[in-house]
Amino acid sequence: MYRVYGDMLSGNCFKIKLLMQWLGIEHEWIHVDIMASETHTDSFLSMNANAKIPVLELGTSQYLWESNAILNFLAEGTPYLPESGLLRAQVLQWQFFEQYSHEPYIAVARYINKYLGLPADRAAEYHAKQVGGHKALAVMERELSRSAFFVGSSPTISDISLFAYTHVSHEGGFSLESYPSIQAWISRLKALPNYVEMSRENG
Amino acid sequence: MYRVYGDMLSGNCFKIKLLMQWLGIEHEWIHVDIMASETHTDSFLSMNANAKIPVLELGTSQYLWESNAILNFLAEGTPYLPESGLLRAQVLQWQFFEQYSHEPYIAVARYINKYLGLPADRAAEYHAKQVGGHKALAVMERELSRSAFFVGSSPTISDISLFAYTHVSHEGGFSLESYPSIQAWISRLKALPNYVEMSRENG
Repeated sequence: MYRVYGDMLSGNCFKIKLLMQWLGIEHEWIHVDIMASETHTDSFLSMNANAKIPVLELGTSQYLWESNAILNFLAEGTPYLPESGLLRAQVLQWQFFEQYSHEPYIAVARYINKYLGLPADRAAEYHAKQVGGHKALAVMERELSRSAFFVGSSPTISDISLFAYTHVSHEGGFSLESYPSIQAWISRLKALPNYVEMSRENG
Repeated sequence: MYRVYGDMLSGNCFKIKLLMQWLGIEHEWIHVDIMASETHTDSFLSMNANAKIPVLELGTSQYLWESNAILNFLAEGTPYLPESGLLRAQVLQWQFFEQYSHEPYIAVARYINKYLGLPADRAAEYHAKQVGGHKALAVMERELSRSAFFVGSSPTISDISLFAYTHVSHEGGFSLESYPSIQAWISRLKALPNYVEMSRENG
């Protein structure tokens, strides 16, 4: 049985929970407290030298990290990941967009606000993150105004990747008022059977 | 025939050139000048709304962006990308590591230094980037001290992704003196047949 080391309130970890729920993959969830530096212990670093959650434990001494790599591994052979060709590459295109152009703004602003309580010495950084976050939201809005999901005509792991931090972006100070297509897409994903709320009780 | 919109001096673009060279994929290279805002014209934005190079043109109105997504697309079915399972997911693990924990430090420090000439108002940011860059290099060194390549026993696109900015990291102020395994890995990749130098003349 898989073990997932993570925190349900982290969007990167929530991605894994949501896919596992939708695919009915049994697993054990081990809560890791990043505020208590639990990703920097020797035992954690032996699983992921990059000191980040989530980590997927596959078996004795086999670990996979990076949320989007874990999603690709788990979704192989399911409707959440096209088998090959351009559609499969487009899933990755949106996942790399998420990690480079979305997460560093929206997730980091949320972290500064929600986890750290928006301290004065991070206020300038927090406000600077708003610009990049809205750029990413505008790119998403443009795409979602033309199609119900990011790749193909049904949900894929690219939707899961972008949903994770977007659906809680208000916690980072982002209003989705000017993004009607994003709002509709969020509702569409939340309405799917077996949707799980981002809450530590569901970990 | 493929068209690539890019700049050979950008590591993200160089990745595509190197793989195409190693696989013998014919293509036309279209130089894009980011300093002249050529990624922000209407015609460029219609290819990639996220306004970044590289972009791969596959045919009439079909475009793929994000360097690592393009690599996965081109490498499908070749020795540079394991067919499935954990090895394939590990390739992605290292590529997401590159985009989140490596590029934003090493490539951005290089950009501030090489493209902008290290202006005074970016000096603090440049120096802050050194810390994150060395963290990434330490994670790479640990892995490469145990194996010749990042995934499996031969070069994959994960090596190409990490090589692109690492082999010119001195241009961002990073010395590789304390990373003997990274140095050996760079020499190993450069010695492969059909290696191409990162130069605009080779675009």
